[in-house]
Amino acid sequence: MASEAERNTISNGGRDEHALANENDALITSTDPHHPANHICSLCVQFYGHGWVTGTGGGISIKHGDRVYLAPSGVQKELMKPQDIFVMDWATKQYLRRPQVLKPSACTPLFMSAYTNRGAGACIHTHSQWAVLVTLICEAGLQDPDNRNVFAMKEIEQIKGISRGGTGSQEIAEGGRKLGNLGYFDTMKIPIIENTAHEEDLEESMSQAMKQWPETCAILVKRHGVYVWGKDVAQAKTQCESLDYLFQLAVEMHKLGLKWV
Amino acid sequence: MASEAERNTISNGGRDEHALANENDALITSTDPHHPANHICSLCVQFYGHGWVTGTGGGISIKHGDRVYLAPSGVQKELMKPQDIFVMDWATKQYLRRPQVLKPSACTPLFMSAYTNRGAGACIHTHSQWAVLVTLICEAGLQDPDNRNVFAMKEIEQIKGISRGGTGSQEIAEGGRKLGNLGYFDTMKIPIIENTAHEEDLEESMSQAMKQWPETCAILVKRHGVYVWGKDVAQAKTQCESLDYLFQLAVEMHKLGLKWV
Amino acid sequence: MASEAERNTISNGGRDEHALANENDALITSTDPHHPANHICSLCVQFYGHGWVTGTGGGISIKHGDRVYLAPSGVQKELMKPQDIFVMDWATKQYLRRPQVLKPSACTPLFMSAYTNRGAGACIHTHSQWAVLVTLICEAGLQDPDNRNVFAMKEIEQIKGISRGGTGSQEIAEGGRKLGNLGYFDTMKIPIIENTAHEEDLEESMSQAMKQWPETCAILVKRHGVYVWGKDVAQAKTQCESLDYLFQLAVEMHKLGLKWV
Amino acid sequence: MASEAERNTISNGGRDEHALANENDALITSTDPHHPANHICSLCVQFYGHGWVTGTGGGISIKHGDRVYLAPSGVQKELMKPQDIFVMDWATKQYLRRPQVLKPSACTPLFMSAYTNRGAGACIHTHSQWAVLVTLICEAGLQDPDNRNVFAMKEIEQIKGISRGGTGSQEIAEGGRKLGNLGYFDTMKIPIIENTAHEEDLEESMSQAMKQWPETCAILVKRHGVYVWGKDVAQAKTQCESLDYLFQLAVEMHKLGLKWV
Repeated sequence: MASEAERNTISNGGRDEHALANENDALITSTDPHHPANHICSLCVQFYGHGWVTGTGGGISIKHGDRVYLAPSGVQKELMKPQDIFVMDWATKQYLRRPQVLKPSACTPLFMSAYTNRGAGACIHTHSQWAVLVTLICEAGLQDPDNRNVFAMKEIEQIKGISRGGTGSQEIAEGGRKLGNLGYFDTMKIPIIENTAHEEDLEESMSQAMKQWPETCAILVKRHGVYVWGKDVAQAKTQCESLDYLFQLAVEMHKLGLKWV
Repeated sequence: MASEAERNTISNGGRDEHALANENDALITSTDPHHPANHICSLCVQFYGHGWVTGTGGGISIKHGDRVYLAPSGVQKELMKPQDIFVMDWATKQYLRRPQVLKPSACTPLFMSAYTNRGAGACIHTHSQWAVLVTLICEAGLQDPDNRNVFAMKEIEQIKGISRGGTGSQEIAEGGRKLGNLGYFDTMKIPIIENTAHEEDLEESMSQAMKQWPETCAILVKRHGVYVWGKDVAQAKTQCESLDYLFQLAVEMHKLGLKWV
Repeated sequence: MASEAERNTISNGGRDEHALANENDALITSTDPHHPANHICSLCVQFYGHGWVTGTGGGISIKHGDRVYLAPSGVQKELMKPQDIFVMDWATKQYLRRPQVLKPSACTPLFMSAYTNRGAGACIHTHSQWAVLVTLICEAGLQDPDNRNVFAMKEIEQIKGISRGGTGSQEIAEGGRKLGNLGYFDTMKIPIIENTAHEEDLEESMSQAMKQWPETCAILVKRHGVYVWGKDVAQAKTQCESLDYLFQLAVEMHKLGLKWV
Repeated sequence: MASEAERNTISNGGRDEHALANENDALITSTDPHHPANHICSLCVQFYGHGWVTGTGGGISIKHGDRVYLAPSGVQKELMKPQDIFVMDWATKQYLRRPQVLKPSACTPLFMSAYTNRGAGACIHTHSQWAVLVTLICEAGLQDPDNRNVFAMKEIEQIKGISRGGTGSQEIAEGGRKLGNLGYFDTMKIPIIENTAHEEDLEESMSQAMKQWPETCAILVKRHGVYVWGKDVAQAKTQCESLDYLFQLAVEMHKLGLKWV
């Protein structure tokens, strides 16, 4: 039987393993802070400070050209290094780089769903407590007993930070949806889907929700958190911030006995 | 038809475009951390930490001599660079520097209103959730059903951090208003104006409120946030902090069933 | 009439003004981070982060040997520099160093009261919202209608972070009070005094409270904040933290309908 | 009578005191940030930011091979230095390094209990207000009057960050407990023990709870805080984060009138 080293060489088509490792590292090695591998790490530090990725929860992915960059599973987000990042080839859906000691994120199929169904350029998943509390208030019908699977809010300025039509890109808008961001008098609606025992099992209901709600840029997962995407990482991140602001405001409004719509 | 480069040269009165670009950059280039272009950036990092400028919301402007410095629209505030700053000539109201890839802030006419009507030296706009919640409590008449368009508070020490007469400058005080800061037994009153679909449309009601409330240094915008100004950036910033403290305290007092006045 | 420069020389007893300035700066110039002038500045950055000194509110003083170091009035605490610090001679109560553009803190007589009445080595004043809310809950008699001027709490572990007998020093304990810190089953009692229009007017009631409550290391000021002292700056700071933790916990307990004692 | 220097030499069995001091310092001197002495210090800075170790409260210990590293008693956690760390020999339970000016943490026997009873590799003790509030809600029977000594929660995604069987290590699982982490539909149960006047007196009831609840990785102490352990410091830290997230969520859910189970 072939030794570990031999098998590696074989599976790499006879190319030198050491050279391949260097080649792979080139995918995540850059001095540019905006390189996706660096950007994911600096954003994770920021997200940790927001309480979005507590205890290795949550995740983030950036699609850059033909490559998808993914934060790994089970890593302390505030300590993540570019070396921890998985890189997938968009065309073949094969990993170009796969850190040997880490597992790919269980969020991967959900991030891919945002890329496939919405043409997104980045997707963020948080376990924000405000997102979870909003789903609990909705589930219990405390704001609107007739709509327990949608978080709706209107006439709050920060809603204007949320795009219509997912990524807000021209291509996506061809289906007839309005472009640009929500207006102050629009009602923002974010669908809420049921949680599942295993995160990857959310894929079907999330894809379905993306099709059923062509204008949303986010999907809440009951008792779990939120997925937010955008045409690029800046839009995904600022929308995630605006939504988290609105979730927190909604919880505070509910405590004060105020209606969201 | 003239090429892009030719037109630029023409519109600049025949002066070399490259030289002009350098000239413009000089307006925002300084090693002094108190230079308005640097100061705006460092304050925006701090404001982001306070949750005042989430998701590109909020803004800030400093008037320094004959020039008005303005943070741009739609930029992540914690990442802003001096190169992103707009500079306007106070006398002509023309932009001396206008970053080509950015849009001027929609807050610009409102900041100008504070300079024109109050002789302010700086103006800050936040989307603080505490400001928004205060306007919601007032709107619903939960504290004082007879005064839904004014936030009033008294006998809290931090009120002494708020000036009378807007900027507290001698010139502004000529209309007969008292100088200095509010006292502990004074009642602080901050007017609340209606929000509009477009931020720039707040200009008229804000100017009107500035005239109607000559002692206020701030105007709350319902379901939106707050505008705070001062004679200089230090006063604008410390008043904005004191008000945010009071807004948060007011929300907590309301939750405990306590009256603000 | 003597010129400004001449008068300065005269008032300095004929000594060269420039030499004196250098001499005074020596009082606040050190590379040691534990030098009181440096320590006050680094603590103020930390206190700002805690929300204790918002909008130039609050203050701190350290007594080191024969000298009292005092943060100035009206300065943004997170930006304070050693050059901003006042230094007073303990024996003569005269300022050895007085920054010309700044005013001494209105808290000065209250800090001095802790040094005189309690032999404290440091005193901190915060405008913490939790301190203010505790005084409001007590004032309204929501926890104990029969004791509106005392904040009492028991059977919370963090109480063990609070000393008996003010500074916990041997000298102070000679009056017969118990030494060391509170135990878990002790009841912590912090007196609440009325606020006054001017901070310096708190001096009499604060001195009186220090005498009436020989075991307390802190005095709450209604609708204003708290003064906390200790035998040294470490004890003053850790007690201030423990108290703020207890104030916040007390507010949360009250919201949940739980009793403090 | 022997001089101080002589006695030191004598008590060290005739070995040179200076040499011994150097020898001991070697136990806590490393440029590797993952060395336990460095790691404890950087984690304490992080824990201070979370509000877990306010006012010298809380503590942390790491077991690394045959040595147990312990944060000292009464030290400001955000300022801790490797020089402050106690090092104990696991086999003999004797201190190999004992900083002369510091006292060992009163948590020491409780940390040892996690090592002995659970084979833990690290243990964290926090005074988190959310942990304390959860014990108060349970004590008052506000969620489940029939189970006041257990915090139970289910169907919240973050529960999946909590291991079954304490450290999750193979050895510990030999008693028949399930391996790995809790699933989304499992009910997480954390026992709550009574607080005692002196922290070291918690040892017996904590050891008993560890035996009675073989699946828990944490024990809440009523009106005090929580102890959390893991197979290594990363698991202890991420579980502590996940639990704190769940405690905070539980308090917020209770305020909204929602049930935990």
